[in-house]
Amino acid sequence: MRCIAVEEAFLTQGLADAWYEILGGPDAEPGFRLMGGSILAKSPMTATVHSRLVDLGPARIAQMDNDGIDVAVLSLTSPGVQVVADVARARELAAVSNDELAAAVRAYPTRYAGLAAVAPQHPETAAREIERARQKLGLVGLLINSHTQGHYLDEPQFEPILASAQAQMMPLYLHPREPAPAMLEAYRPHGLYFAHWGFAMETSLHAMRLIVSGTFDRFPKLKIILGHMGEGLPFWLQRIDNRHALQVKLGDAKPLERKPSEYFLDNFVITTAGVTSAPALRLSIDVLGAERVMFAADYPYENAREAVDFIEHVELDEETRAHIAYRNAERLFGLSPTAR
Amino acid sequence: MRCIAVEEAFLTQGLADAWYEILGGPDAEPGFRLMGGSILAKSPMTATVHSRLVDLGPARIAQMDNDGIDVAVLSLTSPGVQVVADVARARELAAVSNDELAAAVRAYPTRYAGLAAVAPQHPETAAREIERARQKLGLVGLLINSHTQGHYLDEPQFEPILASAQAQMMPLYLHPREPAPAMLEAYRPHGLYFAHWGFAMETSLHAMRLIVSGTFDRFPKLKIILGHMGEGLPFWLQRIDNRHALQVKLGDAKPLERKPSEYFLDNFVITTAGVTSAPALRLSIDVLGAERVMFAADYPYENAREAVDFIEHVELDEETRAHIAYRNAERLFGLSPTAR
Repeated sequence: MRCIAVEEAFLTQGLADAWYEILGGPDAEPGFRLMGGSILAKSPMTATVHSRLVDLGPARIAQMDNDGIDVAVLSLTSPGVQVVADVARARELAAVSNDELAAAVRAYPTRYAGLAAVAPQHPETAAREIERARQKLGLVGLLINSHTQGHYLDEPQFEPILASAQAQMMPLYLHPREPAPAMLEAYRPHGLYFAHWGFAMETSLHAMRLIVSGTFDRFPKLKIILGHMGEGLPFWLQRIDNRHALQVKLGDAKPLERKPSEYFLDNFVITTAGVTSAPALRLSIDVLGAERVMFAADYPYENAREAVDFIEHVELDEETRAHIAYRNAERLFGLSPTAR
Repeated sequence: MRCIAVEEAFLTQGLADAWYEILGGPDAEPGFRLMGGSILAKSPMTATVHSRLVDLGPARIAQMDNDGIDVAVLSLTSPGVQVVADVARARELAAVSNDELAAAVRAYPTRYAGLAAVAPQHPETAAREIERARQKLGLVGLLINSHTQGHYLDEPQFEPILASAQAQMMPLYLHPREPAPAMLEAYRPHGLYFAHWGFAMETSLHAMRLIVSGTFDRFPKLKIILGHMGEGLPFWLQRIDNRHALQVKLGDAKPLERKPSEYFLDNFVITTAGVTSAPALRLSIDVLGAERVMFAADYPYENAREAVDFIEHVELDEETRAHIAYRNAERLFGLSPTAR
């Protein structure tokens, strides 16, 4: 079975150097400092992850062969350039990363596709970078790691980014990072800010803010991708509709043209990144339909072979399996349906 | 089909008066002030809810008959006495509420059972109130509305409460309220602090804190009840196990004796309160088993007739339906299996 994995991470050495420099100084965001303390610590485990992240050459392709992945849709790993306070540097790091990514895609055109990085710190430049990534670099979407220095994409200053993503038909992958400053404190105990809890709480809140702020009334063709089985939202849609309607009646939420779940069905696509739970997959298919779920392995953070085994063997009819394993990604990203 | 509903709210007039007094003063918690601004505003809708909350007499019984509910397991509505800063007053309000609740159960012994209120602000008194509620009042569990003035039950000062709940075999219903001060700011926009999102994020975080702090290594027989289909946790257990193990390896979370999901299976029971999604129910049964899911209607906040219709008609084998509709509640709360 052809297998396209759509949340696959890489890192430029330039950004890694910038991260270490920021963490060595006094101005790192508190959440980034927490995460950096574990994932960027020098240890054999993190060294292995780092060497896999910075490799876009034959070793990664060999690993993909080994794992059973035909195409990797690559993106700059979290939190990307969003923690770089020097805006000019953040823009430059994003552009260089996109250039490196496009070069890798040109080198392996049947094995890689790429999602652009942008610096939401400067929305107008980010909007132009989305256009450049689509028109000049051939990238097929963009990825933003949830909040940018505590700010969310429903805030008005980010409208140029959403407008450009819609105009360029670039799906926006809303990827996790540690919770924003306004809730980080609650997720400090026991390391809960990380991928076992805080990541999903941060990213699902971001998605909810986009929905209930009316973003999709303004940008009806904008597509948002959520990893990690939709960051839990598929489980909640019925209750969200019910209680959001109450909140509107109470005068405490703005009326929307449609129900929250309708925006979720029309404007969101989810991926299996990091989730190998058959019940969670089944619920997501039942609620969203097989055409709104895409496979992802989350390499090198997760075991990609286990992810492929899961999608190859989980109980699904073969039509549904094909949608999830490759067809939805081909359609959404306009990938050529060439088997390897 | 016999139907026992286990998250059914009431309110004493004494507590309602205390709430209005607190909201009228300068010291109300910011989250309570936000919620109070909508649910306690004087309007025809809130007046109807209020009159239903304060009624434990024949009108409520008639409504239960109409809705198809045989037994209501009642509890003081959120945020209970936890927002009362005057600790002596909070303790008194909890005790009076428990006395009123016990009187209602004595008046309708085949139709009501009750969960005690406590003031976690004073853990030793709360521990004694749990004992009194069990031994003298015949209440069958207790309910705490998530954080108490920003504090969570995994913090050491609350150990007397957990110890007493375990010793008295009183299941602890961990009920939502608006997010704690440490994350409230993130949930302010668009009213997201309320039941369509913030409630679940607050309560699931609380449950996660209990699990990853090792609470159930210290209190292996403690039972926690989560409403709203487990506040989303059943959807996440596979990923939680996987990423928590990584967090332990990174040295950023303490090692536990067992996997997080094992504590969830042994120490938690969930309810359907506020959720009428067949996929969410199916996932919960698949992941937890039919013996860990109980029916709840969330009267008077939700339409109880719709909740009963859902559980009567959703696709389930009849054995599973019986477990969820009444058998699990009979067993957990020691209710007599008298049909009405």
